[in-house]
Amino acid sequence: MLEGGIKESAKGCPSITHPAIILVSPQMGENIGAAARVMMNFGMHELRIVAPRDGWPNPKAEDMAAVAAGIVRQAKIYETLREAIADLHCIFAVTARPRDMVKRCIAPRELREAMGCHPERSEGSHAAGDPSAAPQDDRKYGLIFGRERIGLTNEEVALADVILTIPTDENCASLNLAQAVAVVCYEASGYREEAGARKRWFNEKEPDSVIQSMVEPPATKEEIIAMLEHLERELEEGGFYAQVPNKKPKMTANLRNLFSRAGMTAQEVQSMRGVIRALAGKKRR
Amino acid sequence: MLEGGIKESAKGCPSITHPAIILVSPQMGENIGAAARVMMNFGMHELRIVAPRDGWPNPKAEDMAAVAAGIVRQAKIYETLREAIADLHCIFAVTARPRDMVKRCIAPRELREAMGCHPERSEGSHAAGDPSAAPQDDRKYGLIFGRERIGLTNEEVALADVILTIPTDENCASLNLAQAVAVVCYEASGYREEAGARKRWFNEKEPDSVIQSMVEPPATKEEIIAMLEHLERELEEGGFYAQVPNKKPKMTANLRNLFSRAGMTAQEVQSMRGVIRALAGKKRR
Repeated sequence: MLEGGIKESAKGCPSITHPAIILVSPQMGENIGAAARVMMNFGMHELRIVAPRDGWPNPKAEDMAAVAAGIVRQAKIYETLREAIADLHCIFAVTARPRDMVKRCIAPRELREAMGCHPERSEGSHAAGDPSAAPQDDRKYGLIFGRERIGLTNEEVALADVILTIPTDENCASLNLAQAVAVVCYEASGYREEAGARKRWFNEKEPDSVIQSMVEPPATKEEIIAMLEHLERELEEGGFYAQVPNKKPKMTANLRNLFSRAGMTAQEVQSMRGVIRALAGKKRR
Repeated sequence: MLEGGIKESAKGCPSITHPAIILVSPQMGENIGAAARVMMNFGMHELRIVAPRDGWPNPKAEDMAAVAAGIVRQAKIYETLREAIADLHCIFAVTARPRDMVKRCIAPRELREAMGCHPERSEGSHAAGDPSAAPQDDRKYGLIFGRERIGLTNEEVALADVILTIPTDENCASLNLAQAVAVVCYEASGYREEAGARKRWFNEKEPDSVIQSMVEPPATKEEIIAMLEHLERELEEGGFYAQVPNKKPKMTANLRNLFSRAGMTAQEVQSMRGVIRALAGKKRR
C-alpha cells in the first residue's frame, strides 16, 4: 500500500509522488509538447491542461513532444482551473510578476522541501525499513503555469497555496512557458540528489512549512473552494458586498487568498462551514 | 579594472563574469533563438555558434529569441569548436551520454563553484573590502552544447575541461537543446543566491516568519485575538456551541489555530470582522 504511492520516477525521494503539471490556457501546441517532453526528462508524467486555446487534441503538441507524445495523449483537459485542481491538496503558482497578495513565496530550489521531501528520508533509509522514511501523507501537489502572453490572472494565483518565482534578470523576467516548466521540473525531480554533493545542497534548516505542520488530512481544493463559495453566497445575502459593489472582486480574492494560504485540513473546512451556517443561521429561521 | 570585469547581471557573485554559451552545429534556428531568450532571462549575453546547419544569419533564430534578438544578432559565428573556445580558459561540455573518458564530471548545481564562485565571497564581503572576496583570476568560462540529434562528438568533449551532466530520468536523458541551456543558465546565474537570501526569512522556525513576506502590515496578536473573540461571541449567539457544548474548548482552539496560522494582515483582520458582522448582521435587524 505504501509502495503503491511511490512512483519509480520519484526515487530520489520516496516520500512524495511527483506533482501534476497544470498549464492554464496555453496558446501554442508547440509549447505544450515541449513542456511534456521536459516533464518526461525529469520523470514527471501527469499533465493537465485548462482550456487550451487551439482546442484538443492538438497535433503540434504531439509532434513537439517527440518521445513524450504519450504524456500529451494522456493529458487531462479541463474547462476551468478550479476543476483541474479539485482533487489536489497543495498548489504552487509559478509566476514572475510580484503580486499584491499575502502568500508564501518560494524559489524553485525550495520546492522539494515545500512538497515535504526531506533529504534524510532518502532511498537508503527507506530500503532499510527505517519507519521515518515512510511517506508522511498522501498529499497531492500541483504546479500551475500561466498562458504565454499574460501568465496567470490574480484570480488564478489566489487559488494557489504558494507562489513560486524563478529568479531571473529583473529586466527580462518572462520565461518561455516550456522553459519555465523545464526549470521547475528540474528542481522538482529527485534526480539531482543522485548526482553527488548531496550534503552541500541540503544543509539548510528545514522550512517552517505550513504544509508540513498538519497532522490531519488536508482539504482538497474542491472542499476549500466549495467552502469559499458558501461563504461568498452568505456574504452576498448578508449585504456584505452591497456597501462596496466595485470592491467585490478584490474582496473575494482577498478572502480566497487568506483561506488558501492557511493550509486547511478537511476537518477545518467542515468547521468553517459550521461557522458560516451558525453565523448566517438566524436569517433563515 | 577589477570592477570592469564585473557585470551587473552577475551580482550574485562578483568574482565571475558569466560564461559564454557555445552551441555546436545547432540544426534549428528556433532552438538557437529559444536558447538566446533563456540566456537573457538568466543574465547571460555571450552567444557563440559553431557551424550552424542552416547558415547565418537565421531569421527563425531572431524570431524565436523575441526580446533577446540582440543576443542572436551579436552572436559570434565560428567554423570550428576549436576556434570558438580559443580565448577561453575553462570549458564545460554539457552532455547526457556517459563517456569513456577520464575527466571531472559535475552536476549543474556544482557549476558556480566550479567556475570559482564561492558562496562566502559574497557581495557583502566584497563591498566591505575583504581581500578574500577579490576575483581569484580573470578566467573566462565556456559551456558547450551539442547538436540536437547526436549531441557532442567524443572529439568535441575531449576539448573540454569538465563534463556537466544534467540529472534526468535515465530512460529519457536527451533534453531539447534550449531546455538544456535553460537548466544550465539557471544554475550558472547568480540570481538564485539572492532568492536564497530570501529563503532564510522563511526557514526560521518563528511562527510569524510568513508575516515577513507581507507587503501589507501584519496584524498584531491583539487584533487577531479581538477578531477571534468577536467571532466566538457571534458563534455563541448563533447557537454554534449549543449543539455540542462539551466540544466548545476544542472547537475554539481549532478556530484560533486556523486563523493564527494564516499570518493575517491588519487589513485582513478588518475584512474578517466585516465578514462576521455581515453574516451575523440580520440577527440584529
